[in-house]
Amino acid sequence: MIERVGRYTMKLTQGPVITGYAGVAGKKEGEGPLAEDFDFIFEDTTIGEKSWEKAESAMLREAVSRAMDKANKSPSDLDFLLAGDLLDQCISATFGLRGFNIPFLGMYGACSTMALTMSVGALLTEAGASRVCGVGTSSHFCSAERQFRFPLEYGGQRTPTAQWTVTGAGCAILEPSGSGPRITAASIGRICDLGIKDANNMGAAMAPAAAETIASFLEDTKTQPGDYDLILTGDLGYVGSELLLRLLQEQETDIAQVHDDCGMMIFDRDNQDVHAGGSGCGCSGSVLNTNVLKRMAKGELNRVLFVGTGALMSPTSSQQGESIPGIAHAVLIQNQ
Amino acid sequence: MIERVGRYTMKLTQGPVITGYAGVAGKKEGEGPLAEDFDFIFEDTTIGEKSWEKAESAMLREAVSRAMDKANKSPSDLDFLLAGDLLDQCISATFGLRGFNIPFLGMYGACSTMALTMSVGALLTEAGASRVCGVGTSSHFCSAERQFRFPLEYGGQRTPTAQWTVTGAGCAILEPSGSGPRITAASIGRICDLGIKDANNMGAAMAPAAAETIASFLEDTKTQPGDYDLILTGDLGYVGSELLLRLLQEQETDIAQVHDDCGMMIFDRDNQDVHAGGSGCGCSGSVLNTNVLKRMAKGELNRVLFVGTGALMSPTSSQQGESIPGIAHAVLIQNQ
Repeated sequence: MIERVGRYTMKLTQGPVITGYAGVAGKKEGEGPLAEDFDFIFEDTTIGEKSWEKAESAMLREAVSRAMDKANKSPSDLDFLLAGDLLDQCISATFGLRGFNIPFLGMYGACSTMALTMSVGALLTEAGASRVCGVGTSSHFCSAERQFRFPLEYGGQRTPTAQWTVTGAGCAILEPSGSGPRITAASIGRICDLGIKDANNMGAAMAPAAAETIASFLEDTKTQPGDYDLILTGDLGYVGSELLLRLLQEQETDIAQVHDDCGMMIFDRDNQDVHAGGSGCGCSGSVLNTNVLKRMAKGELNRVLFVGTGALMSPTSSQQGESIPGIAHAVLIQNQ
Repeated sequence: MIERVGRYTMKLTQGPVITGYAGVAGKKEGEGPLAEDFDFIFEDTTIGEKSWEKAESAMLREAVSRAMDKANKSPSDLDFLLAGDLLDQCISATFGLRGFNIPFLGMYGACSTMALTMSVGALLTEAGASRVCGVGTSSHFCSAERQFRFPLEYGGQRTPTAQWTVTGAGCAILEPSGSGPRITAASIGRICDLGIKDANNMGAAMAPAAAETIASFLEDTKTQPGDYDLILTGDLGYVGSELLLRLLQEQETDIAQVHDDCGMMIFDRDNQDVHAGGSGCGCSGSVLNTNVLKRMAKGELNRVLFVGTGALMSPTSSQQGESIPGIAHAVLIQNQ
């Protein structure tokens, strides 16, 4: 049953189970601290495809296939796939997943897409609309750079606040019952725009939305940061995470002891030149569905509040002088 | 309660009520056969905004505001807004709706977005996750042309199979109870790709998906075309509609007597130079939320199967030689 608590949060009293999950990543990600956790590491940027966009599609397909395998499911068992990505018209998801012949719910939440698809997938499962569904997302450094910034060949300098788009994809399979952690609450974020216009500082644009969603989730559920083993944002990077902690401290909420961020976890700050950390839908997609859920399976983490953050801009909106609206969706995942 | 029937369809036994709806349109649409039905007709393409993209955002905001007014709701009453559009990274929806401060679910279904948001909104309402939500979408001829085809200034010739992107927006407000027609079933479509590559023939790319969704909906619900007052596709236009009828006839399903298409309804084929008819998210968005729901309110129509169709391509995918995958989602709307 879905029970609304407070203004923005929904409790899922049965709690859909994550019965399978997988994350795949690119070469650079595979050289980082989470190398051991990924289900597969691709050794080149095109994965044998003719373009980076097609490579991204192939990565997402691989993550979905591996997650289905782990849940012991075939495509015909799935009632829905919920997915989206950063590319124009979400072509990574549509082209990557078209061959599965599974009812498809396209979603767009920029880098919050993993949390967005997981929230909606969990709600549909709890409601009895879905018996088995897959939720997932992807991003690719090369396809994102040419989409949002400059052609790679241009060799532009990156600013210190810039984040590095992760080449990776992740997928989770949700079912009403089974073995695995449960999704027991969700909160859909509001669009939050404080007027940040620097497209090389996404962390700053998204931090206020993350602060708002975390604060309202804690208020709605009458819980404290200490009630969670991990409050995981994905992905504010170093600049955005620092801002998030400060924004919450101003409201007398201190999450520093339990906070981590997918964009800080995926790369080695000292030895990998990624400036403010990782970003992209595939960052939280691949980190949540590997390292984090594996630590939950081992019992190292039991109660994780996953807060996916997204910057809802486009190159067109930035060129037209618009600011960058942020959004953050929260999903509570806990061991049974 | 949500009850799964057959392989792809969900019955909504209570049936969320459409308690408010509105559609706005541009000048050309306002000179067409549905002129009397639109809630507002904008007289120029920029609506006083500095760009067509900003104008599209303003149109969507206007449609959402008017729908909320009619349902006697203010933004703070809404649990969710579900919206998306054709622009890269769905900026019409995010920038148009950011000021409302309503939890936002971004969705991408190309021209099927009205049916996609309405299906998911209805499911969330039936499940008790949403007490009041708004579902909507928009498109704009000028922003779509420069996004998907050529700069308007180029003055390119349009092919006979090309559809004309509607400048318009629509929104419906859904609640668990109240006065208005009910959404009593929904079916989420699969991605269907028969290899059509002509970006100027979207109707042909989408018709197979529409045929598949309509056929499986009829099979799942054990109903016949004659059980509906209207099977409304949105939007295949003239070329795609003809193909749809033929594809269904090959399966011995004849919907000709009850079929109409938003893309055929919105323009006057003889006197408005639109070739194969209207298209764009705002086409079914504005036609459903004006003419069709008004005819339901008058009792001229009692049982409407609305089948939103989308072409899930991007300029990048077409430039890379990809075909155009189609999708169609069905929503059954009936008077109480």
